[in-house]
Parts: sequence; C-alpha cells; structure tokens
Amino acid sequence: MPLDEEKNGACVRSIYVNNPHLDSMTDDILYHFNLGTSTHDLPAMFGDVKFVCVGGSPWRMKSFTEYIAKELGLSGTNAEYPNICAGTDRYAMYKVGPVLSVSHGMGIPSISIMLHELIKLLYHSRCNDVTVVRIGTSGGIGLKPGTVLITKQSVDSVFQPRFEQIILGKPVVRSTELDGELAEELLQCGKDLAEFDTVIGNTMCTLDFYEGQARLDGAFCSYSEEDKQRYLAEAYAAGVRNIEMESSVFAAMCKLSNLRAAVVCVTLLDRLKGDQLTSSHDVLKNYQERPQALVGHYIKKKLKDSKKS
Amino acid sequence: MPLDEEKNGACVRSIYVNNPHLDSMTDDILYHFNLGTSTHDLPAMFGDVKFVCVGGSPWRMKSFTEYIAKELGLSGTNAEYPNICAGTDRYAMYKVGPVLSVSHGMGIPSISIMLHELIKLLYHSRCNDVTVVRIGTSGGIGLKPGTVLITKQSVDSVFQPRFEQIILGKPVVRSTELDGELAEELLQCGKDLAEFDTVIGNTMCTLDFYEGQARLDGAFCSYSEEDKQRYLAEAYAAGVRNIEMESSVFAAMCKLSNLRAAVVCVTLLDRLKGDQLTSSHDVLKNYQERPQALVGHYIKKKLKDSKKS
Repeated sequence: MPLDEEKNGACVRSIYVNNPHLDSMTDDILYHFNLGTSTHDLPAMFGDVKFVCVGGSPWRMKSFTEYIAKELGLSGTNAEYPNICAGTDRYAMYKVGPVLSVSHGMGIPSISIMLHELIKLLYHSRCNDVTVVRIGTSGGIGLKPGTVLITKQSVDSVFQPRFEQIILGKPVVRSTELDGELAEELLQCGKDLAEFDTVIGNTMCTLDFYEGQARLDGAFCSYSEEDKQRYLAEAYAAGVRNIEMESSVFAAMCKLSNLRAAVVCVTLLDRLKGDQLTSSHDVLKNYQERPQALVGHYIKKKLKDSKKS
Repeated sequence: MPLDEEKNGACVRSIYVNNPHLDSMTDDILYHFNLGTSTHDLPAMFGDVKFVCVGGSPWRMKSFTEYIAKELGLSGTNAEYPNICAGTDRYAMYKVGPVLSVSHGMGIPSISIMLHELIKLLYHSRCNDVTVVRIGTSGGIGLKPGTVLITKQSVDSVFQPRFEQIILGKPVVRSTELDGELAEELLQCGKDLAEFDTVIGNTMCTLDFYEGQARLDGAFCSYSEEDKQRYLAEAYAAGVRNIEMESSVFAAMCKLSNLRAAVVCVTLLDRLKGDQLTSSHDVLKNYQERPQALVGHYIKKKLKDSKKS
C-alpha cells in the first residue's frame, strides 16, 4: 500500500492494516467493541472520523466527549452521547462530529486489544487523515504536579525507544517513534492556552505500577529508597520526565498503521518526592482535565484551519 | 513472618506483604480502589473475607455476587450489592458475607495493580485463610467450546511456568505455581455438578490477544495459518489447553503473599478451528456463567464443611 494517495489533487493519508488474511474474511467481528462488519454499517457510523482520543478511564472519555462537543459548538440542549459499545463493558466509545473518544483500560495488553480493533474499525470505515491522541495520567519525574507532558519518545524500563512484541513465542522489536510535528503543534497549544505548564520529554512505559515503577508502597518491595532514587535519577538523565503504562505499544501500533499519533499525559505527582497520590479529589480532577483542554484546543484549531483552506 | 501461625490450637494461614516500608507509613491509600487506611475501617469492612473471586469484567463480578448471595441464602428480597469502589471506574468490588468479588480489567498490568492493592487490603484488614480464584474466559486448544479449565500451571509464550517481573530495569523471574490440592477440589466440584466438561490443564498467559496468541484476524499479522497451527500444536504438546492474559502474574503474586489460589476459565472457542468469537450472545453468556457455578459450588461446600467442624 502507498504511504499517501493522491485524491482530487490532495494528499490523503490512508490507514494500514498489515494483515493479508483480513480481506478474505467475509465478516469481521470486533468482539471487544461489540461491533462487526456484518452487523453494523461502519463507514456510515465512523467514516467522518478525523480525531480519535483514547484514555484509560471510561468516565474520563465520556467527559471528554461532552467537553469537546461544547468546544466545537456541537452540543445541543440536553445532548446525550450514548456509549457506542454499550453491549460490552470492556471499553466505552463516544462520538461527536469528527471526534471519536475511546477508553482503553490500564496497561499495554488492554490498550493493545483496543487498538487492534480500533485500527480495523477505521480501516473498515474507510477513514483517512486520522490523528490519534492518548490523553492520560502519569507520575512525573522532577516536574511540578499538574504539568502536562507531551511525549517525545516512549522508552522501556532501560530507557530504550522500543516495544517488544511476542509473536509465535519470539520477540519482535518495534519502533516507538511518535509524530514530532504533532508534538510541537500540541506544545504550541499549551502556550496558547497558558493555563498550566506544558513540556515535551521522554515517557517511560512500564508493565507494572508498583515494582515496575520503583514504588515503595506496593504489596512487595525488595529495594530501598536509595535504590529507587538512583533508578529515577538514571531515568531523568535519559530524558524521562514521566512514567505511564500504555505509550510504547500505542506509539508502535499507530506507526505501523500510518496513524499520526501523540501522547499527552498530566503528571499527578512528582515521583522524586513520593509514591502515593495524596492530593485531594478536586485537585486530581482538575489535573486530569488538562490534557483534555490541550487536545480540545488543538482539534478546534485544526478544524478552523481546514475550513479556511 | 512464619508461613502459618498457631491460633487457639488451629493453624491459621496469614497473608504476607513483602514490603518493609509499609509498616512505617502512617496512611496507605489504595488509589485504584478509592479506599484507604485512614478513610476506611478496613478490618470492619473486610475482616471476615475468606474467598475472593476476581474476573476481568465488572458486570460479570456483579452478577457473580448476586449469584453467590442466592446460593448461600444471603440474598434478602430486593437485596442490592453496592459497588464498594464506586468512587473510581478502574475496578468494581462487591461483597456478600465472606465472599469478595473484584474486577481486574484485561491483561497482566491491569490485574497486577488490582492484586497489589487487594493484598494490602486483606493484610490491613487482618484477614487469614483466604482463597482467591480467578474466574475468566479464554481461548481453548483442542477442547470443546464451553469446557471449564482449571489451571495446573500457568506458562509463558515458550511454555515455561514462570513470570518475569521487571524491577529497577532488571528482570526477576517468579514461580507461577498454583495450589494443586485446590485445583483437585475444584475438579471434583465440576464432577459433582456434572453440568459441563471440567478439566485440568496448563494455561498459556500472553501479553497480547492478537499477535501474541497467533490469531490471524488482528490489525497486523505476519504469519500464515500453517505457522499458527504449528505454534498451537507446540503449545498443546506442552500441555497447554487454553490461553488467557492474567494467570501468570496472578499465580506469582498469590504465591508470594501466601494466598491459596486457583484459575478457572471457560473456553469460548477452539483456537484450532478459528479466531473469531462467532457464537451467539446467549451461548457466550451461558459459557461465562460456568466458572461462577463451579466456584459457587466450591464455596458452598467449604462453608458447609467449616460449620460441621
């Protein structure tokens, strides 16, 4: 498949599925979405999608949809946004105009199942020029809590920008490169808003929240405070400014399927100073709204630009 | 800490946290449960827990609670079971009598966060003699769909009974041994019920649902049907009869914390014959109730036995 196709003189960025078996399937059931090609008219439902925002929590993705609807002037009075995946409790999905919002649960395996089905959904729906942004929460390293971090590179536990996928029992290494231009545009949006600190840095993606992130407050801990501080200092020296649990596979899968992708996470605490989330509910809620505000601003700006051109 | 303590002449099985830092914390916030030692009286709320059932889907764990309440004669008229973790959407938790039911989402990282906080919850609540069972769904290998499989060993993608935990950037290998006696007791419960096939076998635990389980229907697939069949045949030869995404870390963490543990999963399809879940909603729903029925029978039997003695 070509990277970009010419269509009416304009360059169109297609979505790839890298799977020769798919075209021979008469039907494709997207099981964890409770959607399918023979039960749903996917092009009619999703053909106009240009932005997909994904995040761990179903509540947050619903609230993002309500927020973006208001921002784009698409929310009527008493507008309600039904969960498109209402028939399952694995993921929640909402749509308003060209913006799709999907929850992905916690951790690499959970977001990976969702992304396989999302990429197929966009492919079956014949979408193009789609931008995908993960809006999430994270632990910061040396940043003021509440700072919004746009990921430059997603790195593993030894600070390498790679994701290891096991296929037929063997490891296959994939690149976790994200779209640099998109990251810069998002940084500019942070400057435009000027409501909170927005920075670009590396993100460490781990398979575990406690031992995997050098926390001292899990059910098990075999290392000292000094060991923890040494590890986080090494991460900092490698450019890591926050830690979360989904960015590596997100970057790898978006790259493989030709989706423009970014990761925007707020830091809920500074891990150099502690492990527990002791901030009040209201403070944490305010922090979690920041990536939404940033990405909302970006989408509004892009839609305005596309109307102009 | 001793493995088992004598208490009034009876042997009591304690729960371990292997973390010297915990005792010096004045407060412990179980963030993903929205519970904490200073905000909740955990011993009063959970001190009587003897059985914990965990499963991926919040809906399924609620329905398990309703089922077990009825089975144990603990459901009054119009009894309702509030979600103990109602303040968060990360996990759902229900309790009826000595039975706690908790959802864990999909994949190793998601269940691992939940287990860290569950183990601390049981420890803070001063519980003892606790049995934990994961009731889940899986893909079978060479089994009739709907068969309930009790895990003998949880193995990785090269069929080894181990779980690799990354700590401070370095891999630490942990055993995934489960309680053999408990597995046999559960198998006997399957025979008692005689409502569906129940077998013991090895379970392969993967980090991915599509490429990681040799499916041909993901967004990406770089191997052939023959490659897939060869890999599944190797798994079968190693005693693997089903594949899921949580058992290895579940087994490893329960073993480290001295919890009696079992994994009971129904197979929703035979992976030798296909990859997609094409069975009707009602058939799949019936299958998913089977592990519940098996574990419900086991709990009833155990509570009856303990009243006798």
